Amino acid sequence: MSQFDAAAGAEARERIRAGSTEPTSGLAPGLVQANLIAVPADWAFDMLLFAQRNPKPCPVIDVLEPGQVESALASGSDLRTDIPRYRLWENGELVDEVDDATAAWAQHPDLVSFLIGCSFTFETGLLEAGIPIRHQQAGRNVPMYSTSIACSPAGRVSGNMVVSMRPIPAGQVAEAVRITDRFPAVHGGPVHIGEPEQIGITDLSAPDFGDAPMIEDGDIPVFWACGVTPQVAIQASAPPFAITHSPGRMFITDAPEGNYRQ
Amino acid sequence: MSQFDAAAGAEARERIRAGSTEPTSGLAPGLVQANLIAVPADWAFDMLLFAQRNPKPCPVIDVLEPGQVESALASGSDLRTDIPRYRLWENGELVDEVDDATAAWAQHPDLVSFLIGCSFTFETGLLEAGIPIRHQQAGRNVPMYSTSIACSPAGRVSGNMVVSMRPIPAGQVAEAVRITDRFPAVHGGPVHIGEPEQIGITDLSAPDFGDAPMIEDGDIPVFWACGVTPQVAIQASAPPFAITHSPGRMFITDAPEGNYRQ
Repeated sequence: MSQFDAAAGAEARERIRAGSTEPTSGLAPGLVQANLIAVPADWAFDMLLFAQRNPKPCPVIDVLEPGQVESALASGSDLRTDIPRYRLWENGELVDEVDDATAAWAQHPDLVSFLIGCSFTFETGLLEAGIPIRHQQAGRNVPMYSTSIACSPAGRVSGNMVVSMRPIPAGQVAEAVRITDRFPAVHGGPVHIGEPEQIGITDLSAPDFGDAPMIEDGDIPVFWACGVTPQVAIQASAPPFAITHSPGRMFITDAPEGNYRQ
Repeated sequence: MSQFDAAAGAEARERIRAGSTEPTSGLAPGLVQANLIAVPADWAFDMLLFAQRNPKPCPVIDVLEPGQVESALASGSDLRTDIPRYRLWENGELVDEVDDATAAWAQHPDLVSFLIGCSFTFETGLLEAGIPIRHQQAGRNVPMYSTSIACSPAGRVSGNMVVSMRPIPAGQVAEAVRITDRFPAVHGGPVHIGEPEQIGITDLSAPDFGDAPMIEDGDIPVFWACGVTPQVAIQASAPPFAITHSPGRMFITDAPEGNYRQ
């Protein structure tokens, strides 16, 4: 199991609560990071069913019922303040980005919150195997792309899959598959390797979310299902209101990644 | 992978639709069997969340939205007729058992149906390893017990776990663990081995569901989480209406168990 500092999660959340808005890749190594999607109670079944039918992009690791803001995976946490940046959605439109969602939450007290595993979690394992994480090297957010891969719809919720991309040296791609396959709760193994056009990505240098990639000679682009997928589903499905994290700026839990390794 | 006859599922459903009411253990070997829990749409989120939080007793393998009666796992199937016997529930009380649920379904058109993996699925694997299945040898239904193991509650849904029990020769218990661990979608490995009192079972000869066990000298009672668990949750949580299968009388799919083996 990876080394980790059990207090690092609480410390990172404290810094974020105090105002840090940086991407969270590389923070609190060895602890599970999570995507947020919060929708009104009336939409909660459709969203949970969407996740259940699309476990690769939407592996649910915690669900907070209306009125709950402390995740069982992070003692003393507050979902309204402990994410670096939030996106607010109305009828499928992005209407605002905020660093504190307390006011938005107060206006929508029936929100049901889903925490979805994030691939940042397995980056520690890749690094330990000597596999470079290019976006960390470059000090950038991971690049993420909308694809042409349709998710299975559920009730009113549908949309295409979003993927994160890491350029991996060709000789280490197979090992990256093996390592990430062991983490099905944080998206597991890649959904696509090379040939971005086949999944509808026409320009790797222009991701739909996050920052442009740094690709070295001999790297192959490797694509993992991404927890930003529900945000594209929100755009396609237009619930009256939703709160999500801002891509790359995650909720950091206290849960060791080893808990989710097979 | 186990041998199986791809047409056996449709044939078994046809016999059941025509009137067979026998327990389904041993039918259509190698194909996945499922428990049914159908609740009004207003209760669907709580029930799906209950399943998500209790994946060992409630591994969801399909969800049918309101108006749907054909499972994606069984071509041409009809959930209203293709289970040997149904239980009808009102406000947490068992009010009737019927062999055809078409009329009940028509009165509650907003039912959401959950199919939950059944441990009958891995019995083929146990038999192939030379492990005897005592209830099949005796021509009986598998014994099932309510336990003192509390499930994680979800909204209005809570209750204790139900387990199925198979007596296994002491020298084969470890192998039974290994085999069933490979099938997390049909309850996976045992939740308890020996010492029934520790999980609140005071009399093995008097199961709460199914038939009394046949236990040979040298057998150890081995307990697996059971998809009857939602029926106990219905009693505890009292939704206005629900339809379930009758314990031991399952929905037979066309899905090879190999699809659910890790």
